[in-house]
Amino acid sequence: PDVEAGRQCQGLLDMKTKPQGSLGRLEELACQWAALRGEPAPAMPRKGMVVMAADHGVTEEGVSAYPAEVTAQMVANFSRGGAAINVLSRQHDVRVEVVDMGVRVPVEGLTGVRHHRMGPGTGNLARGPAMSRKTAEEALSVGALLAIELAESGVTLLGLGDMGIGNTTASAALTCVLAGVSPDMATGRGTGVDDAGLTRKVDVVRRALVVNQPDAADPLDVLAKVGGFEIAGLAGAALGAASRRVPVMLDGFISSVAGLVAARLCPRVMPFLMASHMSREAGHRRVLEALRLRPLLDLGLRLGEGTGAVLAMGLVDSSLHVLHEMATFASAGVAEKSQR
Amino acid sequence: PDVEAGRQCQGLLDMKTKPQGSLGRLEELACQWAALRGEPAPAMPRKGMVVMAADHGVTEEGVSAYPAEVTAQMVANFSRGGAAINVLSRQHDVRVEVVDMGVRVPVEGLTGVRHHRMGPGTGNLARGPAMSRKTAEEALSVGALLAIELAESGVTLLGLGDMGIGNTTASAALTCVLAGVSPDMATGRGTGVDDAGLTRKVDVVRRALVVNQPDAADPLDVLAKVGGFEIAGLAGAALGAASRRVPVMLDGFISSVAGLVAARLCPRVMPFLMASHMSREAGHRRVLEALRLRPLLDLGLRLGEGTGAVLAMGLVDSSLHVLHEMATFASAGVAEKSQR
Repeated sequence: PDVEAGRQCQGLLDMKTKPQGSLGRLEELACQWAALRGEPAPAMPRKGMVVMAADHGVTEEGVSAYPAEVTAQMVANFSRGGAAINVLSRQHDVRVEVVDMGVRVPVEGLTGVRHHRMGPGTGNLARGPAMSRKTAEEALSVGALLAIELAESGVTLLGLGDMGIGNTTASAALTCVLAGVSPDMATGRGTGVDDAGLTRKVDVVRRALVVNQPDAADPLDVLAKVGGFEIAGLAGAALGAASRRVPVMLDGFISSVAGLVAARLCPRVMPFLMASHMSREAGHRRVLEALRLRPLLDLGLRLGEGTGAVLAMGLVDSSLHVLHEMATFASAGVAEKSQR
Repeated sequence: PDVEAGRQCQGLLDMKTKPQGSLGRLEELACQWAALRGEPAPAMPRKGMVVMAADHGVTEEGVSAYPAEVTAQMVANFSRGGAAINVLSRQHDVRVEVVDMGVRVPVEGLTGVRHHRMGPGTGNLARGPAMSRKTAEEALSVGALLAIELAESGVTLLGLGDMGIGNTTASAALTCVLAGVSPDMATGRGTGVDDAGLTRKVDVVRRALVVNQPDAADPLDVLAKVGGFEIAGLAGAALGAASRRVPVMLDGFISSVAGLVAARLCPRVMPFLMASHMSREAGHRRVLEALRLRPLLDLGLRLGEGTGAVLAMGLVDSSLHVLHEMATFASAGVAEKSQR
């Protein structure tokens, strides 16, 4: 990041007709944006959202409140514009790219869905690796190439969204290894399992770590053994975006775990990651702490798909509208702070 | 509020393609909106913002970091569209009405500014009453009539914004009496006074209470003795809006205090009040506690003008886009939660 550009942006904001710093985190956002884009008054963001979907073999352990078919059904819903992410993206003028990274049974004939299928869902991580190391690399590269393509087509702010029945279980296992958290702290209710389901889920995460013995010092090993196709793809997207100086707006637990995977693979990604919100999912707080990120919103969301990321993109827009459109003390003829 | 309409709205949301409750406070907002508007799926809000400006005699005590002329200068800035509230209102399609409730020296020839001047600023509340009881009643009625006019022209969600150098001092005094808080807890740095200024400000609030002896059981007495013209106008606007079932989005400390005045004058207003954000100003938390409101945002804002209220209106929009535009499990062919 260009620290000097960020400082110059704060200088511009301090000339606007408001007490210095009185727009709080909106001012911080504008300065962060300036530093990341490398100019004091960068253009408004052109916003894109990558929603990646895949299935998880671990669902056979009964870790989700919803049947696995829902993943593919939701891909169809994304394609038709009926999901929450579509609705909120229309409100905030965000372009949405949907990628099937490997749902169990793909829905045919959907418009606007990209197919980069790594297989019909991952292996059951409670009994062996979710995928091979080579597949994890391929999935990372799919995400990276997509992010670079979007950057080249003009996207300057990229949100990450996920869909995958079972993916809070994989994300909890990743959190345990990459953030050093115990399974009971990393595991939450996901789409809404009951107490018995939660107990089962914590046990599955424990078994996944015992069976696979992921090596915390080798993030690709961890990703392959207890990750997911969509999580790997999103981690790749974070890497690709950062390589083009495109800031990445994380959503909830799953996309933040993807951000953590990317940060462990390449720590230089970290300054480009932004936390949109604090979700209700138990492990999310630990992941954001590991990334040293402070979320913008706290609305009790736990949907995923990128929904919280899109809401926070609206705040980035606000911060840049302020930077570009507000009058200065001089232009508006307003007196500045007294020197008492 | 129509509790049954709110419940029916939740029923509609529960049919949407997402785990039940997974949109957290967005779902609560939609249901609250439905209950207040009295129908299960009310139309999108038509958003209005009333920004009231006035000066405060107490500025002669040196309680603000900015000179009093800034109030009138900012009214001119509002009129020309260069202030933060104009910028954010354009982003979120909010109609802004600016009212001069009594700045010291009015700026001539401004377009779009309504003049309902109660005088050239209030009296110095550290030495006597800010205004007469009759003037307070007049200011309340200006606000109520304006809110009713806006409701009749189609506004269904009204934000309250303030501008007035010195008004955090008046608001602190009102908070002491109406929320039962001590002057040191109710008083903050406003636009940014230093430590010496803050000490002076707390002392001014103490003197205001001693000199005026406002009667907590008589909210109009309190408003007249230690309030402000714009605060009274905004309290009236809250009363007028609620009388037409128009929900009121409070902004920061000053507009929330106006909401508290309205609630003390007429407790039936309370269900119509919504808290947009938690400002950095010290007394705001106490006012929201007294109103039993939980803010939607916490972005370290301390600008006023209605800026936080407009940001939160964007969330109300989001909640209603979700209600109106998302597919249902049935329409999208998505399986519902398993009965495990």
